[in-house]
Amino acid sequence: MSKGLLIVVSAPSGCGKGTILGEILKDDKFYYSVSATTRSPREGEQNGVNYHFITREDFEERIKNNAMLEYAEYCGNYYGTPKKEIEEMREMGKNVLLEIEVQGAMKVREICPDAVFVFILPPSVNELERRLRKRGTETDEVIAERVSQAKGELAFAEKYDYVVVNNALEDAICDFRAVIKAEELKVSNAKEIIDEVINNA
Amino acid sequence: MSKGLLIVVSAPSGCGKGTILGEILKDDKFYYSVSATTRSPREGEQNGVNYHFITREDFEERIKNNAMLEYAEYCGNYYGTPKKEIEEMREMGKNVLLEIEVQGAMKVREICPDAVFVFILPPSVNELERRLRKRGTETDEVIAERVSQAKGELAFAEKYDYVVVNNALEDAICDFRAVIKAEELKVSNAKEIIDEVINNA
Repeated sequence: MSKGLLIVVSAPSGCGKGTILGEILKDDKFYYSVSATTRSPREGEQNGVNYHFITREDFEERIKNNAMLEYAEYCGNYYGTPKKEIEEMREMGKNVLLEIEVQGAMKVREICPDAVFVFILPPSVNELERRLRKRGTETDEVIAERVSQAKGELAFAEKYDYVVVNNALEDAICDFRAVIKAEELKVSNAKEIIDEVINNA
Repeated sequence: MSKGLLIVVSAPSGCGKGTILGEILKDDKFYYSVSATTRSPREGEQNGVNYHFITREDFEERIKNNAMLEYAEYCGNYYGTPKKEIEEMREMGKNVLLEIEVQGAMKVREICPDAVFVFILPPSVNELERRLRKRGTETDEVIAERVSQAKGELAFAEKYDYVVVNNALEDAICDFRAVIKAEELKVSNAKEIIDEVINNA
């Protein structure tokens, strides 16, 4: 069995990343990498589902043991990606989805040259703003801040391997699946397939 | 509009390459690159469809003018890939399919680093032999020769970018389409998409 892929996914808020990944994760060939954090769980958040909630001591121990793929400190709390379960899942042949913001993704790029980097784009910045407004849950100020942040993140899109535009959701899911399928068919990931064809009956 | 892809496709005889390409070509985003040759048309062969049938003088003139992407002499006749129509079609945004044997493909690899190389594999060498036998049109000797040739060609598979295994035809077509879609979504081919998202309303 071939080793699973590590697929790093970033997108500005409001691009439908969660919905797309939710669809992809219905296939049990995929595994969602859960981040670790030292912040307290919010209401409704479950340990091991939303985050691995761990102590500051535990987190720092993991940093020391090189057990974090990447981590950052934000508002006094650590957030990071535990290495071990990603490796274990990939060895089991699972494709691991790692949802992460652009700075973290760039760190993973340095450490895991075999990871696949996908950036989900909105159809346009204006459409992104319309979508955020349509939710009706945020003030104008928050929306303006989100749009400004999105623009900053979009500048990183060209540092990824692939872009998927979420114009129509069905198409975006289809495009995302095509990217993963193609990666599986890349010769570098398909050596076992080639060997089987040549050697098997 | 983005420039079209150049997709170079090779496969041993009996892998269903023709059927797969026929399906892909139903989409008029694709264009089939017709080779040029100096050999005479066989019964039923049409100029501009099966080959561009040209004179030896014309062919040698084109070689001299660097108008052939690659060419080879075989049994006293030239066979080659005219450069101009490939470039014109790509500039029009068409994805050009170039069906070519492994040696020619390796030459194109040197000249066109932006081309995409797809190798279509049979499920196994033994299955390939069974398929050739099932046709019932060839002698044992010819089949043995084809199988031997296929083995030699399969050794080149790992020099391509992608492999598509033709086990079930529908899956192979789907895989082939995924490869092309992913190539279109590669950041290097999607700069216009990214620019549009950032700049358009």
